[in-house]
Amino acid sequence: MSAAALGIGDTFDQLWSGLLPIGVGSSGGYRRFAWSDADLEARSWFVTAARARGLDVQTDRNGNLWAWWLPAGWSGEPRDAFVTGSHLDSVPDGGAFDGPLGVISALCAIDVLRSRGVAPLRPVAVAVFADEEGARFGVACAGSRLATGTLAADAARALTDVDGVTLDQAMRRAGIDTAHLGRDDDALGRVGVFVELHIEQGRVLVDLDAAVGIGTSIWPHGRWRFSFVGQANHAGTTRLVDRRDPMLPFATAVLSARALAEQHGGVATFGRLRVEPNGTNAVPSKVTAWLDARGQDQAVVDAIVDGVSALAHDRAATEHVQLTVTAESVSGVVTFSTEVTARLRRVLGSVPALGTGAGHDAGVLSTAIPTAMLFVRNPTGVSHSPDEFAERADCLAGVDALAAVMSDWVGVADSVEAS
Amino acid sequence: MSAAALGIGDTFDQLWSGLLPIGVGSSGGYRRFAWSDADLEARSWFVTAARARGLDVQTDRNGNLWAWWLPAGWSGEPRDAFVTGSHLDSVPDGGAFDGPLGVISALCAIDVLRSRGVAPLRPVAVAVFADEEGARFGVACAGSRLATGTLAADAARALTDVDGVTLDQAMRRAGIDTAHLGRDDDALGRVGVFVELHIEQGRVLVDLDAAVGIGTSIWPHGRWRFSFVGQANHAGTTRLVDRRDPMLPFATAVLSARALAEQHGGVATFGRLRVEPNGTNAVPSKVTAWLDARGQDQAVVDAIVDGVSALAHDRAATEHVQLTVTAESVSGVVTFSTEVTARLRRVLGSVPALGTGAGHDAGVLSTAIPTAMLFVRNPTGVSHSPDEFAERADCLAGVDALAAVMSDWVGVADSVEAS
Repeated sequence: MSAAALGIGDTFDQLWSGLLPIGVGSSGGYRRFAWSDADLEARSWFVTAARARGLDVQTDRNGNLWAWWLPAGWSGEPRDAFVTGSHLDSVPDGGAFDGPLGVISALCAIDVLRSRGVAPLRPVAVAVFADEEGARFGVACAGSRLATGTLAADAARALTDVDGVTLDQAMRRAGIDTAHLGRDDDALGRVGVFVELHIEQGRVLVDLDAAVGIGTSIWPHGRWRFSFVGQANHAGTTRLVDRRDPMLPFATAVLSARALAEQHGGVATFGRLRVEPNGTNAVPSKVTAWLDARGQDQAVVDAIVDGVSALAHDRAATEHVQLTVTAESVSGVVTFSTEVTARLRRVLGSVPALGTGAGHDAGVLSTAIPTAMLFVRNPTGVSHSPDEFAERADCLAGVDALAAVMSDWVGVADSVEAS
Repeated sequence: MSAAALGIGDTFDQLWSGLLPIGVGSSGGYRRFAWSDADLEARSWFVTAARARGLDVQTDRNGNLWAWWLPAGWSGEPRDAFVTGSHLDSVPDGGAFDGPLGVISALCAIDVLRSRGVAPLRPVAVAVFADEEGARFGVACAGSRLATGTLAADAARALTDVDGVTLDQAMRRAGIDTAHLGRDDDALGRVGVFVELHIEQGRVLVDLDAAVGIGTSIWPHGRWRFSFVGQANHAGTTRLVDRRDPMLPFATAVLSARALAEQHGGVATFGRLRVEPNGTNAVPSKVTAWLDARGQDQAVVDAIVDGVSALAHDRAATEHVQLTVTAESVSGVVTFSTEVTARLRRVLGSVPALGTGAGHDAGVLSTAIPTAMLFVRNPTGVSHSPDEFAERADCLAGVDALAAVMSDWVGVADSVEAS
């Protein structure tokens, strides 16, 4: 029986109605920045929802949440677990689905199995990874990067937000003992497989007319900080030849990024910017801008970043502006476990497989444990925007797919799938 | 006798030492935004300094301060006054001299006359105009524009800062009864002439090897708000063809502004910018940017603004981005009173005359009363920056020039000038 037929649609709606008001702004977009009040409220919502299901919730040393559903009579540490989940934090003015859909679908999938009378033979967990978007402290997937050791504890503790608050301070405020940040072999050792369900952030499933797809890879991608340092001056009285205006090489970088992305078949975006002193009648002293670049393979990303950097350096030299380009949270190509994706295909039948340009905790974790993803159709492809949307029927199809995979994995699937 | 010979250098230093700590930031730049705590503290510093000289300080209906030195036995309202002064507010991270030099020099010029035993035959006032820079509420010279009626009271009251505080609220907090904002014929009717002393914000006096110059005109100039509206989207998963990225036409506007300013011999600057949602991995939904454009005549300014607007519109159309261009605080060319500048030349002798690209209260007031300016050499030309600087000897030469002009105007100059 499907989630809808089992009445899980109501549960799904109730979970959303609890989560949707948290951290929403006047635009309808979300500002659930990692470890902010809104994020803590969302985490607390999750703990309550998981405990209401009798799940045992633990916070790991890096602030990630794990809600456990253990087989009857299980004693000792969980191992070889089926783990699903996603994140609850958001980009500025983000959509409702990016992250939360995976968390809510995971809880609903457990409800589906229980409604069918399925008890797991292996441990199941719903994970909520901390600070996936990196919107506040600049490093995406900080929770999973810390767990896998790809983000060093000292570097993480020193990250700062725009108000100068360190990640260390923000996590300690939330009750995390930051002395223990770092690679977490205990947590990773409990996981047999991690399957993250996520709203699609493009239009592949729309074009293929499919509600659900299997994620097989993540494009290589990264963030590069372009720091242009010129000299503040009066906008009315400073001759053009006397200026050192950092806005000009920044503008060159923006236009070259688009041109090079087109040329090489990747994507490139300058979406975040800081201008100092940011006065109407002052030539800026400094422009700091972040380039997000992605491509199907590393050569595409390298060609874009190297090309933008070279053209921006040329213009910076002309304008007597200093340019420093610093790589931040760069990720190589991720190919999810072919064993896992093959098994998902076997369970789900004729479901399309797709790669994605978006980074996810599943990509970070794939270096340490077998992972794959499920995507739910996004009718407009719009994401990281208040306009992000998925149809309820597609979301419930996602719950069904996740429940089928979970059921298959925890060992009692065959008889249930036929029902 | 010069100000230095009269010991006014010490007075000058004492005035600076009282003012310099107010509103200074870690960069060494100033953040004295109109009606902020720092601005109120600076205004209070002025009131104290003026009262210490026995001057009668009044706040006019628009929040401008007037410190009066009246002839002995003067009764009734002042009229036909010699007024000097400038402003105390700053741009973000502004320099120490822009505004304050004119206020301190005005107080010192009175001290010079008194040290020489000169009593005025006509009223003298030192004026501090409110909100000259427009850094907080977006409209430059708000205090003088209100006084002359070129900024309507209703429009002024509704101006908001980045935190949503209105000018009305900010002024009421400072004790101004904003019900009475508006054209102030009483205040303007008292003024016979306004001579504003200001640090030069370019290098004309450096090139001419002169400590002081006479300001004869202000270039036409203005601020235009460019509002580019696109659609927020995921920076990794949104195909280039599906994007509506407002950063691209903004970058086109930046580069065209420089190219057109070069072509037409004017200046053009994009120094202030707001990006929404300003996330590293999000295509922006909106970029708001302010173009500051100036030129020797109106045709130059029009050619720059029209050209930037056309090129930005073209790129916006290509990117499916909406662009709205709105004029803000636009000023035509100002030619200061030729009668006043001729008299300054007569008093000061072989002092160069110069036009300027910077807006000033003297320019706004020139529509209502005879005005002119004095400029003090700026060895680097840098302004609107913590690096703004003037040599102490040049500042004292400015005091001497202002004292000579004041002395000439209030009617007892001839014998004093010879001393």
